Amino acid sequence: MSAGQPPARRGRPGYDQETVLRRAVELFNRQGYDATSIGDLARELGLSKSAIYHHVDSKEQLLSAALDEALDALTSAVDAALDRSSGATADARLQQVVQRSVRILVEHRPAVTLLLRVHGNSEVEVAALRRRRRLDERLAGLVAEAAAEGAVRSDVAPELISRLLFGLVNSLVEWYRPEGPVDVDTLARSIAVLAFDGLRVPPSG
Amino acid sequence: MSAGQPPARRGRPGYDQETVLRRAVELFNRQGYDATSIGDLARELGLSKSAIYHHVDSKEQLLSAALDEALDALTSAVDAALDRSSGATADARLQQVVQRSVRILVEHRPAVTLLLRVHGNSEVEVAALRRRRRLDERLAGLVAEAAAEGAVRSDVAPELISRLLFGLVNSLVEWYRPEGPVDVDTLARSIAVLAFDGLRVPPSG
Repeated sequence: MSAGQPPARRGRPGYDQETVLRRAVELFNRQGYDATSIGDLARELGLSKSAIYHHVDSKEQLLSAALDEALDALTSAVDAALDRSSGATADARLQQVVQRSVRILVEHRPAVTLLLRVHGNSEVEVAALRRRRRLDERLAGLVAEAAAEGAVRSDVAPELISRLLFGLVNSLVEWYRPEGPVDVDTLARSIAVLAFDGLRVPPSG
Repeated sequence: MSAGQPPARRGRPGYDQETVLRRAVELFNRQGYDATSIGDLARELGLSKSAIYHHVDSKEQLLSAALDEALDALTSAVDAALDRSSGATADARLQQVVQRSVRILVEHRPAVTLLLRVHGNSEVEVAALRRRRRLDERLAGLVAEAAAEGAVRSDVAPELISRLLFGLVNSLVEWYRPEGPVDVDTLARSIAVLAFDGLRVPPSG
């Protein structure tokens, strides 16, 4: 194989690695990561255990790949939100990252669901929790910046606002389905409106 | 034993039934209900499996008791919110049920956490999901009533407002700890302020 050529893909007819990962994450979310064995995954896919090991080295490798998928997407959204080079206010960037996070949650729902359920029961999980905590801290910093600008209320602590705001966003994974009555654009807009303006009728209305 | 006297409590020195339930729920939340066996619970409590069966009939009995604890508390809050006999507006009753739900989540956090993770993998779970769905529908009805009063915005569907509002409240179980820097009164008040008025600085400020 010459340099620059992509490495040969591991996989078998019928299942590529991405499909195995996707089905594994669905299974983890359905019956819990700790309760799921490689044997369960093999049964789910109609493969033998040794055929599964042709695709993946371990259950933890699948967990790690899924957590990275979720964390990489969220990190790129937070990186963009903390980039001041566009000259946008912290308030505008906060609104953007809320809407962008909603879209990421919808697009990567299985991986994000898994991330949100991680307890820190292994090194992979502890590392993921550490990355997640760092994102939370950076978002709290952005809320503080918007409060310092005078755009966001300062009678509630920025850390608490940030927790509640992204708790609201995260809660979507539990019920939102894009094939349901609410499309993702309506969802993202509604969340931004409710979070920033509240559910009261505006004073002018 | 004469009629009217309480039945003798099942239990052994060191553990009463309530303690067994509390420790079981902690264990279910930590490692997942499906991944936890009665043997795991026995080890956790330092008892033999037969000693555990002295306290409880099955793992599912523990799950059922915990789900009932959470659902009974939430049902009483929703019953009160839908009671119009006090003459309070739907808007005022909605604010009350939000704050009351926050307190219930903090007070019954382990049981509510378990409830929020139920997937419907057994009859007990399906019954709990049914009760939970009924509560969601009644709360959506209250939001619709507040919107009809003109107190709550009508440019976002009442069902969506209700989902997001109680998604926000439910997300607390993932991070809030009463021994942390935010006391429960501040938490309940902050959530009501943010949900109803939004995180923007009020126009007068």
